[in-house]
This record gives sequence, C-alpha cells and structure tokens, in this order.
Amino acid sequence: MTRSTFDVAVERSDALWGRIQKNPEGLRVLTGDRPTGPLHLGHYFGTLANRVRLQRAGVDVFLVIADYQVITDREDVSSIKQNVRELMLDYLAAGIDEKTATIFTHSAVPALNQLMLPFLSLMSAAELRRNPTVKAESEAVGGSLSGLLLTYPVHQAADILFCGGNVVPVGRDQLPHLETTRLIAHRFNERYGKVFAEPDALLSETPLLLGTDGGKMSKSAHNSIALGASEDETTALIRRAKTDSERVITYDPESRPEVSNLLLVAALCQGRDPAEIAEEIGDAGSGALKKLVTESVNEFLRPMRSRRADLAKNPDYLWSVLRAGNERANAIADTTLDDVRRHMGMSY
Amino acid sequence: MTRSTFDVAVERSDALWGRIQKNPEGLRVLTGDRPTGPLHLGHYFGTLANRVRLQRAGVDVFLVIADYQVITDREDVSSIKQNVRELMLDYLAAGIDEKTATIFTHSAVPALNQLMLPFLSLMSAAELRRNPTVKAESEAVGGSLSGLLLTYPVHQAADILFCGGNVVPVGRDQLPHLETTRLIAHRFNERYGKVFAEPDALLSETPLLLGTDGGKMSKSAHNSIALGASEDETTALIRRAKTDSERVITYDPESRPEVSNLLLVAALCQGRDPAEIAEEIGDAGSGALKKLVTESVNEFLRPMRSRRADLAKNPDYLWSVLRAGNERANAIADTTLDDVRRHMGMSY
Repeated sequence: MTRSTFDVAVERSDALWGRIQKNPEGLRVLTGDRPTGPLHLGHYFGTLANRVRLQRAGVDVFLVIADYQVITDREDVSSIKQNVRELMLDYLAAGIDEKTATIFTHSAVPALNQLMLPFLSLMSAAELRRNPTVKAESEAVGGSLSGLLLTYPVHQAADILFCGGNVVPVGRDQLPHLETTRLIAHRFNERYGKVFAEPDALLSETPLLLGTDGGKMSKSAHNSIALGASEDETTALIRRAKTDSERVITYDPESRPEVSNLLLVAALCQGRDPAEIAEEIGDAGSGALKKLVTESVNEFLRPMRSRRADLAKNPDYLWSVLRAGNERANAIADTTLDDVRRHMGMSY
Repeated sequence: MTRSTFDVAVERSDALWGRIQKNPEGLRVLTGDRPTGPLHLGHYFGTLANRVRLQRAGVDVFLVIADYQVITDREDVSSIKQNVRELMLDYLAAGIDEKTATIFTHSAVPALNQLMLPFLSLMSAAELRRNPTVKAESEAVGGSLSGLLLTYPVHQAADILFCGGNVVPVGRDQLPHLETTRLIAHRFNERYGKVFAEPDALLSETPLLLGTDGGKMSKSAHNSIALGASEDETTALIRRAKTDSERVITYDPESRPEVSNLLLVAALCQGRDPAEIAEEIGDAGSGALKKLVTESVNEFLRPMRSRRADLAKNPDYLWSVLRAGNERANAIADTTLDDVRRHMGMSY
C-alpha cells in the first residue's frame, strides 16, 4: 500500500506540532491576509488565534499583508490603505507581538517580487492552469482569469521561500496549494544548488463559523461580527441572527445549523463545549440563546477592542510598525536574492 | 476606409524618425539582447549599428542584457556570466558610448521586476496565451511553455515602461509585440492615473543576412561571423561558405541566395551597392568573391576588433560599466515604482 501525499503531509504536520511544543527554534511561519476589510470572528478562531499561539510558543512569525493579491480579481483599490490599517489593528489587538513578528506588505518588498521571475521559469504554463486553487478562484470570478491570478501560487511561493518560511498553516483543502511552493523549492535546488527549504504544511482543526444569517461569512453580506465592531453593533447583529422556531435549544449542527452556529460562537468565546451551553439554556428559547451569545462575544472581545481603540488613536505608531516590518522583510529578501543570483551565476 | 493598427504604427514611426533627426530631446530608446552568446555580423547590421546611430543622434539609449529571458526556454545558465561579458564587449566595441548609455541586467533591478505584478493584473490569462510572439516561441520550443515564457511580453513591458522608454526599435513582424506594452501602459493609466508613456515602435529596414551555409544565422550552426572572431577564423569561415557553380557573379537574391548574401555582406561592410560589386567581380568566380568578402569583412571589423581586444584586457572596467548601468537603472526603477505605489494607493 502506498501512502498518499496527503497522508505524508498529515504525518509531517503532526511531527511539526510536536516540535513546536518541544523546541520551536528555527521554525518560521509565513502566513497572511489580503487587505480587503477588517477581520471578523471567523478569521479570529480560524487563523488569527493560531498565529498568536504559534508566536507565544516561540515560532518566528511573518505576516504578509498581501496587497498585490487584492488586484488579482478586483479593480478598486481606493480603500486599500484603510484596509491595511484595519489589518494592522486586528493583528496587534488580537495579540500578535509586533516586537518579534514581522508584518510587511507585498508592494514594499521588490526583491521578494523579483523571485517571481526565476520561479516562473520553473513552472510550465500547463502546471499553472492545472493548479486547483487557481481553477477554483477562476470559477469564483466567472472564469475570467487575470495573469496575476494565474501566477498567484508562484507569487505565494516567493512569499514563503524568500524568508525561509518552513511552517505554513493551512486547512486540509489547501494542501495542494503548498505543493507548488515545495515543487518550486525542489526544482530550484536541483537546477542551481540548494538555496530553499521545502516548507511543511501545519494542519490545524479550525471550526467553521457561519454568518449570522446561516450563510458563509462575508463582509458584503453583513453577517459577520468584526473584531473591531462596537458592542452595540454586535448586539444588533446577533439580535437579527437567523434561528429556528424550536423552543428547546440543542447542539445539532446537521439539522439545526444556525442555532448550533450561535452555540459554537458562544462556546469558542467561553472556551466551553457547545452542547453543554445548549443544555444550560434548555427551553428558554432563541431569545435567551442570543442574549448569552451577545454577552459571550462582547465579553470575549472587550480587551481586544479596548487595545484596538487605543492603537487606533496612534496611526503613526501603526505605520511605524509596518515600516519596520517592511525594512526587515527587505533586508531578508535582499540577502535571499543575492544568494539566488549567486547560485544562478548572475552575480556580475 | 479604416486605417489598420499597422498603418498607424508605420506613420508614427516615420514621424519618430523625423523627430530623431530634428530634435531628439526627450527620446529614450529601450532595446537589448539575451546573453546567449557573442553577437555576429547579422546582429551588427540588424540592430547594433542602428543603436549606435540613435545614440550619436542624441537619443538616450538603454540596453537591457536580458539574463532572465535566457531561462524562459533553457535550463543551462553555466555560461551566462561569460555571455554577459561578451555582450558588453560587443556593445562597447561597436561604438555604444558607455558614458551616456545605460547598460543593465534584468536580474539586478528588483523594482523593474516588481512591476510584473501590477502589470500581470492588467492582462487576462487568455490575452497572454493569444500573444503571437508567445505562440511562435512556444511552437519553436515544441509546445512546452514555461510560465516565464508565457508572461514574457509583460516582463518586456516592464523593461520599456520602467525607464520611460518611448522609442522601441522593432522589425515589422514584431509590431504586435509592442502592442502589449502599449496596452498595459494604457490600462494602468486609465485605472490608476497617468504614470506611463505609451511607447512608439521605430521601424527600421534592416537587411536580413543569411549564414555562410545559406541557412538562418545561428551560433550552433557555426555559420555566422562573430564580431569578435579573429581574421583567420573569419577567413576560414568564408572559405567554407556555400556558393554555386556559376562562374559569373551576379546579385540575384531570389535565384542565387548564397552568392547574393556574400555580396550583401561585402556591400554592407563597404557601404556600397551589392550589384555594383558583383559587376566588378564579373566572371572571376566564387574564389574571387570570397576573397573580396573576406577582405571587406576583416577590414570593416578591424577597428572594432581592436577596441574589443583592448577592452577584453580590462574585465574590471567592463564590470564597472555594468555596475554603473545597474545602479542607474535601479535609481530610475525605484522612482518609477514609488510613483506606481502612490498611484495605486499603496504608500503606507
């Protein structure tokens, strides 16, 4: 019986978790977000909390604010600076320690972006088209695919490899994505000599939160609780949340997705089990459920929101953090690019 | 009757030639070569002589040594540094004035390469695939197309636009190529505000020289007279040149391509008419023709070869010229990229 790439990735991920707990030295995580709007509870429990946990465990954290990935599928960039600011606020408020984390933007690191060129030479056009993520995103935008969206996994490889990122947190469905990065590292090393480490996926079981309307969380659907929303906004949003007509509250994600989702939100905020919370509410109905969820969320987010408000008062500080991150990313990218040039015989 | 894009390009090119002769101020030409081997007579009369002419007329000359374009379709880069050195020698020996020309390599200018990313967002994947040059080059390499070859017109747009190149010498068949650059400049300006000038093609009637075997000149066929070859090598190559059994020498490219090509080579070297030279040789046969061609070529190239030999004695000087060019290209690219960032709202 041959083991699948998937099985191997799962094993390597398990080993990686072990190493993080025992001795995280030499581990560097690269992850990030597109600056398309403020982060919400789904982001927090899905990825952000994990990043904070990794940083506190001693893993070196690199966060890319992927401004060049915004233009893969949209033209309007008028609010991009505002969105970068919101991301910075969310990161720092959520507990990312700016003293040791490196937060940077794509557009500020030319040597990183230059890596796209040698990397593109290592991939065939057919391989680019076959990439499952590119296929999926192409369908999501109605089949029209920009050159930047087509080459996006190669750009992502540059993000990860420029800084020697060896840990990349992904969901199970994103595993093929990281394969392009590993392939590029492998092919480069084979052709020109060893420069890049092949990064490992760090699989994490993240709860999938639904929007308050029961659909997928999305900014445009106004169904997600932004980390930086006010308590009143949060209260209003949860009051309008979809439930069902059953008076007795039970945790049953299959047949009662909306009610169960609200229970899950409360449970995550309280660090408890959703079924236990459901039992406590019993036949008090969805009014009682919403009251409890509102209190749980607002209480959970209170310290984060307070830090966020403080940080927002000092935009100069935020931009200085980003500038320091960009400087650090540039220094590392310049060194990597020099190494790449040397290996390719292009040092003149 | 509507005028075709081609007619418009021809008209604009004619106007450009006029401006070059009258007042070349503000004109900047961007052109260059892949460092795949030393240049030969075909390159000299095809492009290099024209560049020297443009520079002497007062046009600002930018020459890109396109090292990243070597890896679009080949893996072996072991002789790339040597090839870059040969190109530098050929440029300077042919009369490019390094005091005012900017000679640079792709791999040394990160901000130029970064432009690839916003530019890729302005082209659809379908447009990239439809590009006639990409199609042709894809067929030339047996249909297997690297991601870098697919995106090569976008990279070329970055070459031209980063330095505000507004004059691009091309052959008639290369006109569609420049259209991608013009399209990208136009789309960027429309979306983000005016940053780039749309460059014009400069059409030139360049003689098509054949190899000494009557085939297409190519390094691997050993049928081309390198600018830097010795007189003995040149003599030996022309002695082996293909002719025909007809004793009377006539200039008749249609029915006597090899003999006519040799006449053309001599004529270009002497600045005379090939038919006139043929008449002078008369019935002295191909031995006499070859003798005359050898003398013409060696005499024509003698000063160039002498300069080349002198320059070759001082590699440090060559590399210092390249470094100065790279520095200048970087300064310009950094300024352009800052402007691009500002227009895209990505100055943080």
